[in-house]
Amino acid sequence: MHDQQPSGGPAAAPPVLAVVGVGLIGGSFAAALRQAGAVGRVLGVGRNRKSLQQAVELGLVDAEATLAEAAAQADIILLSVPVGATGAALEALRPALRPGTLITDAGSTKVNVVQAARAALGDRVAQFIPGHPIAGAETTGPAAAAPRLYEGRTVILTPLDENSAEDRLRITRLWEACGARVLIMEPETHDIVLASVSHVPHFLSSVYMWQVASAANSDVRMELAGSGFRDFTRIAAGSPEMWRDIFLANRGAVLSELAEVRKALDHAEQALLAGDAQQLHDFLERAALARRFWGSRSGLK
Amino acid sequence: MHDQQPSGGPAAAPPVLAVVGVGLIGGSFAAALRQAGAVGRVLGVGRNRKSLQQAVELGLVDAEATLAEAAAQADIILLSVPVGATGAALEALRPALRPGTLITDAGSTKVNVVQAARAALGDRVAQFIPGHPIAGAETTGPAAAAPRLYEGRTVILTPLDENSAEDRLRITRLWEACGARVLIMEPETHDIVLASVSHVPHFLSSVYMWQVASAANSDVRMELAGSGFRDFTRIAAGSPEMWRDIFLANRGAVLSELAEVRKALDHAEQALLAGDAQQLHDFLERAALARRFWGSRSGLK
Repeated sequence: MHDQQPSGGPAAAPPVLAVVGVGLIGGSFAAALRQAGAVGRVLGVGRNRKSLQQAVELGLVDAEATLAEAAAQADIILLSVPVGATGAALEALRPALRPGTLITDAGSTKVNVVQAARAALGDRVAQFIPGHPIAGAETTGPAAAAPRLYEGRTVILTPLDENSAEDRLRITRLWEACGARVLIMEPETHDIVLASVSHVPHFLSSVYMWQVASAANSDVRMELAGSGFRDFTRIAAGSPEMWRDIFLANRGAVLSELAEVRKALDHAEQALLAGDAQQLHDFLERAALARRFWGSRSGLK
Repeated sequence: MHDQQPSGGPAAAPPVLAVVGVGLIGGSFAAALRQAGAVGRVLGVGRNRKSLQQAVELGLVDAEATLAEAAAQADIILLSVPVGATGAALEALRPALRPGTLITDAGSTKVNVVQAARAALGDRVAQFIPGHPIAGAETTGPAAAAPRLYEGRTVILTPLDENSAEDRLRITRLWEACGARVLIMEPETHDIVLASVSHVPHFLSSVYMWQVASAANSDVRMELAGSGFRDFTRIAAGSPEMWRDIFLANRGAVLSELAEVRKALDHAEQALLAGDAQQLHDFLERAALARRFWGSRSGLK
């Protein structure tokens, strides 16, 4: 039985993995590590009974477990829950948590997750290594999970000062076994960067879409909207619930990046107001060259 | 010879067309009308000798002509020149312009074109019917011209009070012969609508791209940018020269629409600052529903 095996050490049996939340992110982590032979038994924890049963049927996890059972039996625990639920999950894990067990997470913001982890784990916080796999898909749920989801993708870890070098390496190796490449970052930097390249574009696209839809002659506007409008507003169609939660969870960084965008807007608008053709051209050229360079490098078509 | 034919009237020989600027827009207009049998002889006018020769070789036009020759010989003249060059072209056309000849244009802004036309044509301004075909492609030049460019596309006409109903109908019929559908609009409305659905998205996308590229850690930002960033910034890669000219030509409408977007931004930012989940959700939901509705109707994938 897995709970009779010695835990953790280098010569030990394959570690027991517990995945809290068995959807796309957690299910794919389990599938990838199992395929790589990097884990032994896999436990699934979740509030949605149907998803759990589906995860067992699909072979993503071996058995269902409670948070207390996961804490007592697992060597590695991945939290793949809404960031707002991180604190409660860690509190439930703490009482039965064994000393050698490492917890990591997949939350899309990190400053608030670190705060919640400190509050929930107290002097056990060294066992928590915060992370964020930059992966996702149009689909969700255990049926969408795939062992190759993380191949070639980036996973950001924002380790705590309390984390040992050995434990950081353990979590890094696991993500690398999934085919991902690991970047180490401060939680504040992580939140600012994600605010910049993901949250702010969504906010601006939604603001713009809201304004066009609210105009008195929105019908004729929509009728004449073309492919530029289509691309610029595509993200505004995303889930209002999910994006509300992301904006609230990363509020400070989003507001701070929006302030920077406003400064750039002031600058460009001033050039237009003044009819300064040279300044307007230089601004547009810098944006165009940066976007073309990114496009040539990104591999995203 | 075409210049010995009676001009204009319903029972007359097919009208002589002159196209000033024989690139994608002008060349396609000529090709479509010729294919529809709606015009007879076609003259090409332009400053670029090579483009003109190419247009003749491609059969888009029958012969090269000067502006004065076009004014003296043509029944219909299409101006397909940068909007800033409209006034000078009309001034050069005026001295030899016959009374029955109609001039229209393809400029992407209309308030400034109407002003230039009044200044250049004076009491002959009734012969000018401003227009804007909402069509274009990644490609330019006579080689890109195609008789089907306008099929299913929209052409906006912003007629002057001085234009006769008969003349409006003549220009409308020509665009319809190209396969386009004609919308009639005030020049101010045209400029606001185009500012809203085309110019402002480009401005905002460029402002955002400029801000990301100017950040101290722009490298790591660009590295973590994904498909949302890609779509939102795609238009920012466009020609700085072309977009500078569009922004300057439509400055008033662009600034006025930017002011409206700023109001919407204030509103949404305030909800985020206050942590007002309900207001944030309602705002995101309205944007998402409007975008999804547009997507289901637009036919643009």
